[in-house]
Amino acid sequence: MTVTLDDIKQAHQRIQPYIHCTPILQSTQLNKLFTCELFFKADNMQKVGAFKARGACNALFSMTQEALANGVITHSSGNHGAALAWAAAMRKASCTVVMPENAPQAKKDAVLSYGATVVYCEPTMTAREGTVTRLIEQQGARLVHPYDDDLIIAGQGTATLETLAQLDKPADVLMTPVGGGGLLGGSAIVVKQSPQAGITRVIGAEPEAANDAWLGFRSGARLAEFVPNTIADGLRGTVGVRNFEIITQHVDDILLASEARIVEAMKLIWTRLKIVVEPSAAVPLAAIMDQPEQFNGKRVAIILSGGNLDLDALPW
Amino acid sequence: MTVTLDDIKQAHQRIQPYIHCTPILQSTQLNKLFTCELFFKADNMQKVGAFKARGACNALFSMTQEALANGVITHSSGNHGAALAWAAAMRKASCTVVMPENAPQAKKDAVLSYGATVVYCEPTMTAREGTVTRLIEQQGARLVHPYDDDLIIAGQGTATLETLAQLDKPADVLMTPVGGGGLLGGSAIVVKQSPQAGITRVIGAEPEAANDAWLGFRSGARLAEFVPNTIADGLRGTVGVRNFEIITQHVDDILLASEARIVEAMKLIWTRLKIVVEPSAAVPLAAIMDQPEQFNGKRVAIILSGGNLDLDALPW
Repeated sequence: MTVTLDDIKQAHQRIQPYIHCTPILQSTQLNKLFTCELFFKADNMQKVGAFKARGACNALFSMTQEALANGVITHSSGNHGAALAWAAAMRKASCTVVMPENAPQAKKDAVLSYGATVVYCEPTMTAREGTVTRLIEQQGARLVHPYDDDLIIAGQGTATLETLAQLDKPADVLMTPVGGGGLLGGSAIVVKQSPQAGITRVIGAEPEAANDAWLGFRSGARLAEFVPNTIADGLRGTVGVRNFEIITQHVDDILLASEARIVEAMKLIWTRLKIVVEPSAAVPLAAIMDQPEQFNGKRVAIILSGGNLDLDALPW
Repeated sequence: MTVTLDDIKQAHQRIQPYIHCTPILQSTQLNKLFTCELFFKADNMQKVGAFKARGACNALFSMTQEALANGVITHSSGNHGAALAWAAAMRKASCTVVMPENAPQAKKDAVLSYGATVVYCEPTMTAREGTVTRLIEQQGARLVHPYDDDLIIAGQGTATLETLAQLDKPADVLMTPVGGGGLLGGSAIVVKQSPQAGITRVIGAEPEAANDAWLGFRSGARLAEFVPNTIADGLRGTVGVRNFEIITQHVDDILLASEARIVEAMKLIWTRLKIVVEPSAAVPLAAIMDQPEQFNGKRVAIILSGGNLDLDALPW
């Protein structure tokens, strides 16, 4: 394993001046409904509206000015692209983002608003990676991968590092959504290397309709190509190589959630917590709704991954 | 004036065990857009999703068990009703809420979910007050007026008391929406009796389409009957007698906002702060959008009043 708890602590020190320490929210009504105690780490309220600000900020502020001379490039379904554009602007580096053409308009707009150049491609990992490789050859820009990157994994792990410090009493379970595995990987490292924090289970939650992490976790072999079809647009990536290794080693389980449950959970979070979360952020609660028994009476911390979506095209 | 800063401090001590100390949120993007520094006190994330929990809690926990024997009653377009039902449940008192029939379904459901009895009436103050009077004669329940009540005004003022304590540097201006005037009245008392807090202006914001406070403020005479027609359903009440007296004495100005601006401001808050606010809560920002000059370069604290609305019937 290449990323350690120390790397994540250093990442936190590095990015703290630029990010929000987002609040942890609770709802008496939700706790009653699910007969467990839920702690929602509201990283939808993070800079650029997603935890992705953490990793991108860590990557950009770890690079020298020379390394940034030809700018940075990435592929992203949206939030990592916006985060990279935001972080690159702070370092005065140029930024190119390859986006699948089916990304939400709000996410396309966000990337553009932070001053990045956007290049669209087909919504497959092959197309995303192929386009990036071609552009790197042309421009010489530095790749900042959305999740298969140690600096990114360390940055994303800071969401859980903060959560542990903010909880007055340890949680039993930590849950995050899993797309490429940056957040889940970084979080698992924090939890497993902080036994004094008392969390005994780290669980990833994935849409049934994009279950490559789940399949890989169960079979022991990562799926390299996979065409997902889920409303949770932030989770349409395929688990990375580094991420898969960390997940198989440190994550206790991956649970699935149906599309209908994701929408239901999302609406419940909006209604009860009065916050705007995107579908991806609702996947852990959706998984709890689908299999509530194992959470009964437990203290469950959930990282809410983001809040970027088209308010004109809500899924209800 | 009957309510003092001391009453509001006592109210805060009384209700603190039951309410949330809601966060103050900021957005770099919004600050840039309006060239001022905005501090949003997120009382949409308060218990029952509105600042009204403060006043209702203060009123109910100020009453003896004997006073509560026949229960409590109120009229409300929604949030005060839910807050009273919630507070009454904690005191094990029965609660009746008279609601205008055009209140949002989400607010009707909320009042019912806290165990109150709901009685519907025409959407006028005459109908609301007439129905309450008739029911009090029948039941002997104790009226807890939604705003024209010293305990309610003191409770609502705690939102601003908390805000002052949470700001690291004083604000220049404090803004709240104005409907019946409980929140604006209580807030104005806090600000004007805390000169060391450094706020020089207290401003109410009201929909053009429900401008009874604005008309009264300018003419010096309260309007007793008024039929508003605004999307900001929480501000459809008419300013109370006590409230009008406090407002004319302590409030520096009342600004108006058009219906289109209210919707625009609401969407902007959702998009940038990633929180769910109801139309009423967006009225202060809408007023700033309509007359930005006077806020240029200022530090402006805004109380976000609530976050209860029908997610299936958004105004965009």
